[in-house]
Amino acid sequence: MQANVLYAQSGGVTAVINATAAGVIEACRKHPETFGKVYAGLSGIIGVLEQQLYDTSVFTDAEVARLKQTPGGFFRSCRHNLKWPQHEADFHKILACFKAYNIRYFFYNGGNDSQDTTHQLAEFCAREGYAVQCIGIPKTIDNDLPITDNCPGFGSVAKYVGIATLEASMDIASMCKTSTKVFILEVMGRHAGWIAGSAGLAQRHDKDAPHIILLPEVPFDSERFLAKVQSTVDEQGYCVVVASEGLQHADGTFISASGHKDAFGHAQLGGVAPYLANHLQTQLKLKCHWAVADYLQRSARHIASQVDLEQAIAVGTAAVEFSLAGKNGVMPVICRIQDNPYRWKIGEAPLVAIANQERKMPADFIREDGFGITEKAKAYFRPLIQGEAYPAYKDGLPDYWTLPKQ
Amino acid sequence: MQANVLYAQSGGVTAVINATAAGVIEACRKHPETFGKVYAGLSGIIGVLEQQLYDTSVFTDAEVARLKQTPGGFFRSCRHNLKWPQHEADFHKILACFKAYNIRYFFYNGGNDSQDTTHQLAEFCAREGYAVQCIGIPKTIDNDLPITDNCPGFGSVAKYVGIATLEASMDIASMCKTSTKVFILEVMGRHAGWIAGSAGLAQRHDKDAPHIILLPEVPFDSERFLAKVQSTVDEQGYCVVVASEGLQHADGTFISASGHKDAFGHAQLGGVAPYLANHLQTQLKLKCHWAVADYLQRSARHIASQVDLEQAIAVGTAAVEFSLAGKNGVMPVICRIQDNPYRWKIGEAPLVAIANQERKMPADFIREDGFGITEKAKAYFRPLIQGEAYPAYKDGLPDYWTLPKQ
Repeated sequence: MQANVLYAQSGGVTAVINATAAGVIEACRKHPETFGKVYAGLSGIIGVLEQQLYDTSVFTDAEVARLKQTPGGFFRSCRHNLKWPQHEADFHKILACFKAYNIRYFFYNGGNDSQDTTHQLAEFCAREGYAVQCIGIPKTIDNDLPITDNCPGFGSVAKYVGIATLEASMDIASMCKTSTKVFILEVMGRHAGWIAGSAGLAQRHDKDAPHIILLPEVPFDSERFLAKVQSTVDEQGYCVVVASEGLQHADGTFISASGHKDAFGHAQLGGVAPYLANHLQTQLKLKCHWAVADYLQRSARHIASQVDLEQAIAVGTAAVEFSLAGKNGVMPVICRIQDNPYRWKIGEAPLVAIANQERKMPADFIREDGFGITEKAKAYFRPLIQGEAYPAYKDGLPDYWTLPKQ
Repeated sequence: MQANVLYAQSGGVTAVINATAAGVIEACRKHPETFGKVYAGLSGIIGVLEQQLYDTSVFTDAEVARLKQTPGGFFRSCRHNLKWPQHEADFHKILACFKAYNIRYFFYNGGNDSQDTTHQLAEFCAREGYAVQCIGIPKTIDNDLPITDNCPGFGSVAKYVGIATLEASMDIASMCKTSTKVFILEVMGRHAGWIAGSAGLAQRHDKDAPHIILLPEVPFDSERFLAKVQSTVDEQGYCVVVASEGLQHADGTFISASGHKDAFGHAQLGGVAPYLANHLQTQLKLKCHWAVADYLQRSARHIASQVDLEQAIAVGTAAVEFSLAGKNGVMPVICRIQDNPYRWKIGEAPLVAIANQERKMPADFIREDGFGITEKAKAYFRPLIQGEAYPAYKDGLPDYWTLPKQ
């Protein structure tokens, strides 16, 4: 019997999360006997709680395809953690929404917190006697979900960071003779070094940039850092540093909270790159340039990885196939078959095994000196950045689509 | 009679400066009766002073073509200002190099300071009775040279900034319901707002991001800024700010030197974006994200403007043609014939008219409220970012070429 579908985006967005939405919608349209309308929660679970749903049946097939080229959260996302039993009232609200819209298939596209919510929701609805299949879909630039080999969204950030590192390295190499000696790029990854680590792909030969990668997994040692920068500048003429925003002192405090004060005397928030630049300038008298990529790295659909895009679509499609197979409380995962040539397939994991788990970079991905990644890590990262999934352009800028008023 | 050619890159590099080098080399190769070897100064004029030249005749034609896809200064650049008569000794050294290598054609690829050097050098060599044609070639992301309608290197930065603004805006639009309310992107342009202004291209409708552009031409007024951010957040749910690194207080001091102190009590250098973010967070309690593009914007060959690339090649070619026509002390400039469809041609300007001049953004390019650009400005900027000149890729990253050891 036909019933309706609800899809929602959760947490930080990516360059390819809407490709997952397209995968879900396209797969559902192939099975009109099972799936009625496909609704999307506006601003994620908030839209479910408030019964603000967007009916995607108004989209033509060509419009659904455009979702694959659009970064950010097309239906908007939110940061709104739902825990059982603390938020029991909200679980009842979600169930009310399910009932009001005859939702029997719920797809929640997010990271580990969201998959905990999906899991709890599946159990709650079962206890309440309401038949709904709750299926998680992985998404996070942080690449920190367990079981899955990698997470949709990460490959495109890794590609962006690799390109940015390579390009900026060529710039500073040009300038170092008479000007800047150190370039620092700050990237995301509060708890794990996957993103910073991926910058290592820009290094094709031993002496290539990036010369130093600062990972959250390795406590910041100022003395060793200064020595490494100085010796690199002495040998190469310049030094390129890629630093994770989650870089920490040995005592576990974040570098980005290192007590900067602004002109008003207020503690200044964030900025590992300016902290390091200042440290180098005062300690070694080296001229530094620094960049902070922030949102640019995770919204860079203009240079998304083709592999990442395909995987983002595939997990959306697989989630629908799981629901057709009668599954509940599961999530599609990406399984690596081999590195080179890269082959992968979709697997399945129970949400309970995903929920609230965080996967750090393995120790054997980190070079012995703590300032780079190993060949094993490169073999892992490399397949994920393959292919350039260029969007269409209009008048010199990407022709991205934004949510039409309904 | 055949004689040799010397080409040198000067000042901050761009995504397309090597395309100009390719234009010079390719044009010279078409006239072997006139041009012998084409040398490049290693690290710009430093290489000339020290007679460290690179003989480009070792490159195959296919290799020369690869220069067009490579960012940064392929032959390396430098910041080394040569003024007459203060640096008379250096002018003699340059002349010695010209004589040692039988250089009769000198092409200097740089901004306004460099064109002053080229001009002085032409006059100096004439006085010394050495026949050499000194021709300037424009290059600067700052777009601040006079006479020429625009400067090679600028179009690609404008495209990068437009894309970055558009993409980050879609990210914050997704997140603003429950999280970040303001995104700030800091871009280059110490003295003129051309780069920050070009972000305005991302705004297709009145209410679109960027909602606020902060230009060096408009003194920073904290009260008006805070009010505009708050009203934008109230109306749109979020606010996107693009700020020039050259933003100044009313008294002419740079915002980036606004007295930040680090944990060591040292004055902290730079960072308009973190300054503004901190200001907003303390004054309006709004959650901010901020990015500083720095080198990433001017090395972003992966998304260079096709128009910019073509113009960068064309000014190189034109410089050689000028020398064939017996000219000296001139520079090719870009003349706009019409906006839409965009048509342009190469013109000519005497170096003396270029040297040490700086072109600010005209007043009628700046919106009345000082927070954006006018339609006239958009009509100026738009043609410069047209077309995507994608480089070749290898293993997921651009296959950029670096200088082989000679």
